[in-house]
Amino acid sequence: MTAALRQPPAEEDALRALLDARYRDPTDWPAAANPVIEALLAHRSVRAYGPAPLPEGALETAVAAAQSAASSSNLQVWSVVAVTDPRRKARLAELSGSQKHILEAPLFLVWLIDFDRLTQLTPEAEPPCEALDYTETFLLGAIDTALAAQNAVTAFESLGLGAVFTGGIRNHPAEVAAELSLPPRVFPLVGLAVGWPDPARPAAIKPRLTQHSVLFREAYGWDEFRRAAAHAYDPRIRAFQREQGMAEKDWTQQARERTRGPSSMAGRHGLKDVLDRLGFPLK
Amino acid sequence: MTAALRQPPAEEDALRALLDARYRDPTDWPAAANPVIEALLAHRSVRAYGPAPLPEGALETAVAAAQSAASSSNLQVWSVVAVTDPRRKARLAELSGSQKHILEAPLFLVWLIDFDRLTQLTPEAEPPCEALDYTETFLLGAIDTALAAQNAVTAFESLGLGAVFTGGIRNHPAEVAAELSLPPRVFPLVGLAVGWPDPARPAAIKPRLTQHSVLFREAYGWDEFRRAAAHAYDPRIRAFQREQGMAEKDWTQQARERTRGPSSMAGRHGLKDVLDRLGFPLK
Repeated sequence: MTAALRQPPAEEDALRALLDARYRDPTDWPAAANPVIEALLAHRSVRAYGPAPLPEGALETAVAAAQSAASSSNLQVWSVVAVTDPRRKARLAELSGSQKHILEAPLFLVWLIDFDRLTQLTPEAEPPCEALDYTETFLLGAIDTALAAQNAVTAFESLGLGAVFTGGIRNHPAEVAAELSLPPRVFPLVGLAVGWPDPARPAAIKPRLTQHSVLFREAYGWDEFRRAAAHAYDPRIRAFQREQGMAEKDWTQQARERTRGPSSMAGRHGLKDVLDRLGFPLK
Repeated sequence: MTAALRQPPAEEDALRALLDARYRDPTDWPAAANPVIEALLAHRSVRAYGPAPLPEGALETAVAAAQSAASSSNLQVWSVVAVTDPRRKARLAELSGSQKHILEAPLFLVWLIDFDRLTQLTPEAEPPCEALDYTETFLLGAIDTALAAQNAVTAFESLGLGAVFTGGIRNHPAEVAAELSLPPRVFPLVGLAVGWPDPARPAAIKPRLTQHSVLFREAYGWDEFRRAAAHAYDPRIRAFQREQGMAEKDWTQQARERTRGPSSMAGRHGLKDVLDRLGFPLK
């Protein structure tokens, strides 16, 4: 690593404030500030929306950003369904664990792993694309769909909009597929509510684990320093929970409860069988 | 949708140029321009690097951007290994299909689904986290790791750096795991080469399918208009291939060949068995 990046003092101050909110622990590296990095660090998952619709062109601009993300072998294996109909949003909210922000948000996007497009565009005489049946190709689809969706989030947020992902869309994937008329080999990977944040119910920056807990050099490995740094996160997330009026709980305890077993998975422990029925045998 | 977003004419012109390069087809929506959206649309996968190292703080800033992406239930299920040692980069390049840009780039990141951290921080007396054995939780890990990695790409690019993802890291995941000392329940999902783009070998914006092929309203469905719009992509990608000195091939043909079957998968058809050995039974 060579010379530090330079930036105007005001930008560096803004970045430091965002880093302090994200880690609640002093960071000691030279901060590289610019409007893009500030936008990324300022992310908050927004769960309270006003009723106004999106500005014209915002959805298409975000989809262009999504399509600009990398695509493995240029396979372009995802599609997205934009839902604005209140009744459909209500049904999708119900299927996703009664999440009322899906109802509040003027737009709900369902990001799809799409292995059907290729079939749609292929003459019937062509041999089948057998690689689509494998775990690897499904995983490739999940990765590329997520890369795209994240770019859309960044684009929406740069316009002043808010967004929140909904893994709950996988609570009942077959029912969601029916609601959206998905053919076989199209899977609703993740939902994304989008709208104008309600200024009366603002979202906060959620603190994360220190970088000592996630960034390794040359090889992976834990030692006492890293363990202590990770445990130092517990009082920080508790402080956040307190500020938000949430029940206080250590991160490790919360993560253990969330991953306890099938009973903690909101029905998603059956995903493998559902995927098989939806046309993804995961060979 | 209501009033269009307003922006200065110069920004709108810059955005139109990026959209024209991305689609090679006129777009008719009101473009919402700002520096963040321009940065996202300007993405190119960079495969030719100069030798200079990254500026001090760039890696940490990108990891902070990555940690700022959404995390399902705040589980924070990923880690990243930063590799700069030339011999280790050489071995990883070899394991990833002899990709020489991994050698050229001063930094190679391996993004990991990390279910081990929770174990590291949990007293042995605690009951096991059985949900980690399920397909759903692995998929959640892949999604969240990809969201994070994409934020890192956006941050690096905003600093003038270039990057390219390497799915080839999954050609030999067990060998990569050994190289990086990964314990069970940690999976190398995707690689990312990062460095200064070599100005003598510039990367170009790759054209993508029209939005009529990926964006659906209220429900999924194909008709003749959408099929024709998708097929109109073939001459555009051929023009791009011609400009880049690559062999010309229709997109559908290329995608069919890439997904033909196990022989087109560079060893990755065995991923399911490898995952089982690495501690992901995918129940």
